Amino acid sequence: MNLLRRQWIYSHTPDGRVGPEHYTLREGDWSPELARGEVLVEASTWSVDPYMRINQARRPTFNTEPHPLGAVQSAGAVGRVLASRAEGLAEGDWVEGPLGWQTHAALPATALRQVDPTLAPPSTALGVLGMPGRTAWFGLMEAGRPKAGEVVVVSAAAGAVGSLVVQFAKRQGCVVVGIAGGPDKCAWLRERLGCDHAVDHRAHADADALAATLRALVGGVDVYFDNVGGWISDAVIPLVNRRARIVVCGVISQYDGQLDTPELGPRFLHHFLYQRCRMEGILARDYLHRMDEMLRIVGPWVQRGEIHFEQTLVEGFERLPRTLGELFDGVHRGKVLVQA
Amino acid sequence: MNLLRRQWIYSHTPDGRVGPEHYTLREGDWSPELARGEVLVEASTWSVDPYMRINQARRPTFNTEPHPLGAVQSAGAVGRVLASRAEGLAEGDWVEGPLGWQTHAALPATALRQVDPTLAPPSTALGVLGMPGRTAWFGLMEAGRPKAGEVVVVSAAAGAVGSLVVQFAKRQGCVVVGIAGGPDKCAWLRERLGCDHAVDHRAHADADALAATLRALVGGVDVYFDNVGGWISDAVIPLVNRRARIVVCGVISQYDGQLDTPELGPRFLHHFLYQRCRMEGILARDYLHRMDEMLRIVGPWVQRGEIHFEQTLVEGFERLPRTLGELFDGVHRGKVLVQA
Repeated sequence: MNLLRRQWIYSHTPDGRVGPEHYTLREGDWSPELARGEVLVEASTWSVDPYMRINQARRPTFNTEPHPLGAVQSAGAVGRVLASRAEGLAEGDWVEGPLGWQTHAALPATALRQVDPTLAPPSTALGVLGMPGRTAWFGLMEAGRPKAGEVVVVSAAAGAVGSLVVQFAKRQGCVVVGIAGGPDKCAWLRERLGCDHAVDHRAHADADALAATLRALVGGVDVYFDNVGGWISDAVIPLVNRRARIVVCGVISQYDGQLDTPELGPRFLHHFLYQRCRMEGILARDYLHRMDEMLRIVGPWVQRGEIHFEQTLVEGFERLPRTLGELFDGVHRGKVLVQA
Repeated sequence: MNLLRRQWIYSHTPDGRVGPEHYTLREGDWSPELARGEVLVEASTWSVDPYMRINQARRPTFNTEPHPLGAVQSAGAVGRVLASRAEGLAEGDWVEGPLGWQTHAALPATALRQVDPTLAPPSTALGVLGMPGRTAWFGLMEAGRPKAGEVVVVSAAAGAVGSLVVQFAKRQGCVVVGIAGGPDKCAWLRERLGCDHAVDHRAHADADALAATLRALVGGVDVYFDNVGGWISDAVIPLVNRRARIVVCGVISQYDGQLDTPELGPRFLHHFLYQRCRMEGILARDYLHRMDEMLRIVGPWVQRGEIHFEQTLVEGFERLPRTLGELFDGVHRGKVLVQA
């Protein structure tokens, strides 16, 4: 088989915002030869995720080494099997896996997860039924440990993970406050996702103002599911109640270079003492082996249409690098995906 | 009975360092009348503790309201029963309890804990067998959860709590690094308390230098038992290993007014993400009901002379306020007490 393969090569380390200038498009003919156990996949939907920027930081992060330069950008993607030398996967099957930002990839079948397109759109394997869903579910349930009646505050509440945390927390019987940027997102959080309160951080001049709004709405916070860090967290952390749980799922406010050169912010360790609260970082990879557990619970909710999984679909493989950068502008809602 | 009673009244809110200017000495005759169930205690040893300064902050802390002005300074103390209208306590018995900074107090017997002077010096009821011991034990064991072979770093390691954490962690089989100010304290930590390494923070210009020393000694940190906060914690927190536990027991570097007006420091939430570590604040009061459990384990160690409980004994009731302020200079070692 001879294919025209296109690949986005990660070619330059960003210092601030990541964008197209840090990638190089490579195109060429490719005649894949499958080893036994491998399958050839044609990707149809690629994921862009904030964690990709972390892995471009110059300092050690969750990985010891940053993403290698000159290699295809690592990424989850969904596609269909074009050819198979593996048992259990046949031509035409839908799969999800670490295909990277390329139109075609040959991988061991063991690295792939088969996706049933009759249960939900295959792209949900990159969202609610994939990495962001797993992050939201286990981050909230295992680190956040919400109880009915508690106040859960979610930052970046209109994002891929946040929008699911909001809905999962409502299902636990919590009072849910979503923080997001702009009145449209806030209206959507309230009207579509069922947030008890939605707070527009752009309508607040600083952390004190945001804290005053939150305090007036709910008094204190039992679970803070944090995707953003920075000044928004400066507002929320001093409001936590006794034995509150702070889940650090992301610090997207710091992804424009501040991971290499940390910003200054107010010290807040004393609040941990006062409230005997707990803060814990979580990563999707830690719960990979429990995906079945999450799908067993969340899958039926999705099938019955009880979970609203917003997707922003961007058309065109060539728009991948630009779309990654746009994540940090906060212009999109829900899970951002690029389609072939 | 007619007594000359002396009391230190907390009379002015400090903005920075607390000291004698924030207290007023009150002296007067006192003819106590005991209600049923009460005992009259003559104090012989008073505690000075860093938490007292927290409770003078203008903002809400672990208490909703700051320590009231015009009242006797709250404090733990040890003394002997002068008269009793309570079952189970008789004249001459040693007791420990919230007597405050005063020479005599009448309290319900239920607020007091009888101390057996044959087991250990009664003053240990304010140290290793009292609040600091409880803080060290439960803070380390419940929030720190050390395992044999892990690296435990303790800040203010020569202090009342830190010097016990060091020894408790050694007993768990951990590699223990004590951070303290000055070569004398460091030699003492190594030679007397059994620290594997002692690091003098005063010999380091900044957090990066301190981090470099720690990294060279132990690579990474599994448990950080933090009593100080500030720049020392800025050095340690980025060194934590996967799933490390950070125990916030105190932030003494911030007790000269920075609890009211937080200092700026480098943001570090991303390290929580990278390492999936956990930070938790603890207070002695949360483990008060488990004192028996701690005494059952630690008591025999103390009786057998296996725990070194350093005490700095300051003579003279009149020196209480000054001695409180001196806690923040870091000149003393172990538990600081004032004796009648």
